[in-house]
Amino acid sequence: MAKGLSVDERMALITRNTAEVIDEEELKALLNEKKEPVVYWGTMTTGSPSIAYLFPMLKIADFLRAGCKVKILLADLHAALDGSPWDLLEKRSAYYKEVLTSMLKAIGTDVKRLEFVKGSSFQLDKQFFNDVLKLSTISSVRDSTKAASEAVKTAQGDSVKLSGLVYPLMQALDEEYLGVDIQLAGVDQRKILVYAREYLPQIGYKARVEVMNPMIRGLVGEQMRSSVEGSKIDVLDDQKMVEKRVNGADFVEGDSDNGVMALLKYVVFVLKDELVVKRPEKFGGDVSYASYGELEAEVVSKKMHPLDVKVALARELNVLLDVVRTEKAKKLKKLAYP
Amino acid sequence: MAKGLSVDERMALITRNTAEVIDEEELKALLNEKKEPVVYWGTMTTGSPSIAYLFPMLKIADFLRAGCKVKILLADLHAALDGSPWDLLEKRSAYYKEVLTSMLKAIGTDVKRLEFVKGSSFQLDKQFFNDVLKLSTISSVRDSTKAASEAVKTAQGDSVKLSGLVYPLMQALDEEYLGVDIQLAGVDQRKILVYAREYLPQIGYKARVEVMNPMIRGLVGEQMRSSVEGSKIDVLDDQKMVEKRVNGADFVEGDSDNGVMALLKYVVFVLKDELVVKRPEKFGGDVSYASYGELEAEVVSKKMHPLDVKVALARELNVLLDVVRTEKAKKLKKLAYP
Repeated sequence: MAKGLSVDERMALITRNTAEVIDEEELKALLNEKKEPVVYWGTMTTGSPSIAYLFPMLKIADFLRAGCKVKILLADLHAALDGSPWDLLEKRSAYYKEVLTSMLKAIGTDVKRLEFVKGSSFQLDKQFFNDVLKLSTISSVRDSTKAASEAVKTAQGDSVKLSGLVYPLMQALDEEYLGVDIQLAGVDQRKILVYAREYLPQIGYKARVEVMNPMIRGLVGEQMRSSVEGSKIDVLDDQKMVEKRVNGADFVEGDSDNGVMALLKYVVFVLKDELVVKRPEKFGGDVSYASYGELEAEVVSKKMHPLDVKVALARELNVLLDVVRTEKAKKLKKLAYP
Repeated sequence: MAKGLSVDERMALITRNTAEVIDEEELKALLNEKKEPVVYWGTMTTGSPSIAYLFPMLKIADFLRAGCKVKILLADLHAALDGSPWDLLEKRSAYYKEVLTSMLKAIGTDVKRLEFVKGSSFQLDKQFFNDVLKLSTISSVRDSTKAASEAVKTAQGDSVKLSGLVYPLMQALDEEYLGVDIQLAGVDQRKILVYAREYLPQIGYKARVEVMNPMIRGLVGEQMRSSVEGSKIDVLDDQKMVEKRVNGADFVEGDSDNGVMALLKYVVFVLKDELVVKRPEKFGGDVSYASYGELEAEVVSKKMHPLDVKVALARELNVLLDVVRTEKAKKLKKLAYP
């Protein structure tokens, strides 16, 4: 709750660990003006969620703590357009809702001011389509392509699909139709967010504050992608699988630039004030770190070995995922991905 | 009525004076199979209609005579997207409906099996937008641009607008949502029609027969455009103005390739078996032509002077427009174009 929090404290919560805010002055003015600004974060209900979803959930937790109302947009229509079977849309939405709620619980969030909204519940309304058409009359193909170029798969490559260019227009209108003040998204969607700020006012709607999460390194390879074997940890993976995946992660001794350290920095140390890395006595015994910086220093100076850090991370992840790996979630997953 | 007409006779009516049919075999099969195939022709309800509208009306008359049901799509939504003021949409639709009906009456058509449909009455339905999105996922920007390139203004020039690329998708879906077997359009829309035939089957709808009218020469300049001063004769222009416009038309003696001759060929001789060109005795006296070919031969051989032909055309046009220039039409026009 925002009770007792000053505007500066709310600002600090919302902006910590973000890549960019457009723009901070507007955000501050908004927090001064409204006690409960509304923020939305959207996700296509396609593949089964990985632990990468912990990043937006942590930021959503920050927004909730800062007194905001949060709407999670389950973009089922976009998922269908992206190739998800129509008959599974309902089931996937149900599964996403279940595991995202559990993840928020796992990180100790009060979800009272959280709401789930399905894209199909408003994106097929007359007025919405009408506005898509309105925006399309003022959006050049060049600008739409630019807006979509980083975040939308169908707007990339040799054969750009028209849907890829319509995507930014719809995402911009989501801000208006969900009645939000702020949008949260990964910084890979920066160009879409900038498009929204530029074009919504041209059809009479206000520009929103855009808050961007950084892109997080994957366990294997550059980014956390389900397509990279070994990179993805599904939120329902069992304890052994989590250990195996973390153990197989990229981690060069003395180098902290990897997915394991990123998870420790952006997840574990956001949630905890202390991390204990357990180690046999013969290798130096247990070490307790009070901040990510302390841990990083010892990793870089090679006082702490990657293997021990991995074991610590796997243990912390399993504590969180224990809350998510329920029988109900497993049942819903089977229905969503038959 | 098609009563008593053979399939060959119906074919002949539908295909006469057309630029192209895709394809004739399908059209023949359709006429064999259905007594009352449904055809649609669409027009944006933007500027006030000129006599160029006589060409599609004549073809619509052919369709009606061949036993078809005809739907005229008043594309009000497209007009709005093209820049027509939203608050005038209803009034412009009313005016278009009035003058198009009068024009059909003027050319002696039974409009019993004719229906007017406004685009906004179905193009904003959920399922329609959903299908626009579906088509957009399989339509490359390249193909959509190509489809729209000739007929859609916003898809031309340096700053192609996204709406210009969505346009062909919507026109393709019109065929499905209007429940038609055939679309009639100008040959300038050929690429959109070809797009419709290629893409509708990809989302489970049938390909339609496409019937194309030729592009007709304007009175001044290459094509009949309202933007060319002197080229446009408004259907409510009075007798004197019609005479003035026809008199000012391009017509080089001995050359039949001009808008005056086109109107005689595609309008007057379609409606009549005989045209009398009146001439003072000293210039050779009145001449009666039983076919366009006869007239053309005498124009080319300079036996008939352009001025006399112009007078004859203006007279014929005025006979037709007398049916359209009603008090009601004038009143509706004032409301539609204040």
